[in-house]
Amino acid sequence: MENEDAIRFFIENPAPSTLSNVENKVKRFIDLQPEERNVVLVTSGGTLVPMEKNMVRYIDNFSAGNRGAASAEYFCKAGYAVIFLYRNYSLMPFVRHFEGPWTNLFTKRNVGSSSSWEIKDSLKDMLNSSLEDLEHMEKRSQLLCLPYTMLTEYLWYLKTIAEGLKCLRSRALFYLAAAVSDFHIPAQDMSEHKIQSGAGKDKLELSMRPVPKFLRYLVDSWAPEALIISFKLETDENILIQKARAALHRYNHQLVIANLLTTRKKSVAFVIPDSVMWLHLSEDDLKNGIEIEDYIVSQCIKLHKEKNLT
Amino acid sequence: MENEDAIRFFIENPAPSTLSNVENKVKRFIDLQPEERNVVLVTSGGTLVPMEKNMVRYIDNFSAGNRGAASAEYFCKAGYAVIFLYRNYSLMPFVRHFEGPWTNLFTKRNVGSSSSWEIKDSLKDMLNSSLEDLEHMEKRSQLLCLPYTMLTEYLWYLKTIAEGLKCLRSRALFYLAAAVSDFHIPAQDMSEHKIQSGAGKDKLELSMRPVPKFLRYLVDSWAPEALIISFKLETDENILIQKARAALHRYNHQLVIANLLTTRKKSVAFVIPDSVMWLHLSEDDLKNGIEIEDYIVSQCIKLHKEKNLT
Repeated sequence: MENEDAIRFFIENPAPSTLSNVENKVKRFIDLQPEERNVVLVTSGGTLVPMEKNMVRYIDNFSAGNRGAASAEYFCKAGYAVIFLYRNYSLMPFVRHFEGPWTNLFTKRNVGSSSSWEIKDSLKDMLNSSLEDLEHMEKRSQLLCLPYTMLTEYLWYLKTIAEGLKCLRSRALFYLAAAVSDFHIPAQDMSEHKIQSGAGKDKLELSMRPVPKFLRYLVDSWAPEALIISFKLETDENILIQKARAALHRYNHQLVIANLLTTRKKSVAFVIPDSVMWLHLSEDDLKNGIEIEDYIVSQCIKLHKEKNLT
Repeated sequence: MENEDAIRFFIENPAPSTLSNVENKVKRFIDLQPEERNVVLVTSGGTLVPMEKNMVRYIDNFSAGNRGAASAEYFCKAGYAVIFLYRNYSLMPFVRHFEGPWTNLFTKRNVGSSSSWEIKDSLKDMLNSSLEDLEHMEKRSQLLCLPYTMLTEYLWYLKTIAEGLKCLRSRALFYLAAAVSDFHIPAQDMSEHKIQSGAGKDKLELSMRPVPKFLRYLVDSWAPEALIISFKLETDENILIQKARAALHRYNHQLVIANLLTTRKKSVAFVIPDSVMWLHLSEDDLKNGIEIEDYIVSQCIKLHKEKNLT
């Protein structure tokens, strides 16, 4: 039933025109991988859901893309090849530490009677090393960055990447950190034009449908031999673990990483069918600038190895 | 009635903690203006409306902020002092021509055996002159840029700025180009936590309330002597002019600039109570890189002068 919903979604929401380009990039990237290198798909950022066909308004998920960008970086450093599927303009691995408007990168320098704008001295080292690392990883085919914006783009790209990774069998890892909309307005129910407000209209009733649960489909059909890790973000700690367990049960995959919006940078729970393991950063870790993604990624790589030994 | 709704909105949605800072900046900016300089408030970008108190999802309005940023620039060049109230990270006057991720500003240069990342030669002139212009306008107190994100921030800031501009009487101009949400979820109706999806839940019903019409309040109470110009964006050309006229009638202000999503960069209509004047860019204009905001702003300044003569 759920898989039928997923299939129908792809019929009702045609592929974006960019799909074949993404498909080619993924194929080339996978072909270039040496035999011994594992490949991880890291998804990051939030998906956008339009409210009208001629889109004026949309529903979005809060995510700067920190978790995904940091994790992609640690996977690269650990020797994985990373396909990074990220929300356009969200944070990217290696160059994620500068967040302000780009104008803040520069300062004015007077040269004789004229002046020119140059990179701030305090940022030069960060800029050099981060751009260098990004280029290095891309050049040696260890990192492929693919941007999306809409929910439909995200899902079509996910399908295509999963199909591309199938040939790697258990060498593939899915690390699904993107904040994907649970609800959307199906194309056939969507208003053609901007939804009207106006005098006398005292409310707007929006009826949204659940987005099909693609994770089940991913586990069953697209990537049956890969290790699949999903994330669960909640704001209410009373339901966090229960929701994570329900997801594991429903999708039959291996691991849910559960976290709360307010504490997500220092605490996460690894939820597997019969246990929960909490991972907390210590005060010392925080003081030393350790990022929790460093630990999360090490733990995932360990699991990936163990799975492939058994 | 409408004004009561506006007052209630400010009671139910408390002021952001940043308000006094904004108030001080606006006051200082207005104090610094020479007697003969007119002041315009240009609003730009879209407002964000949260769906939950612990926000995971939100509703947003599509707007890169092009119209507002370009218009602010032309007002500055025409000698106006500009308060630019813009959605954080949307486009800003003078520096609006570079849109890509900031990493695209740089290229690698090999210096001897080492390498460093520097500004691309092809961008250096654009970067220098745009940063120079922005700094120049800010230094001579002709431009004050104030970012917002949430709808509530936008409305509180608008109120504060309007109150600050009141002392300038007819020297003030309001140019309201921001895409402000028509609907929101009032604080008392908002879910505390992330709205739950899950098995068995086959739809999400969202009930949203209209945002009070602050324009009426602006005209009546905050800025009774200023020239007030609002924008109307539609996707359906059959209702555009009628909607613009309805807004004029309802709010009793002077001018609505009406435009369609698809043609907004080359055609706008100036709608006043008894006439509609269309302004189109010619093929030659487009070829020569003329921007429609150049014409729009000239026309608004002309109206402002005429109003102050009568």
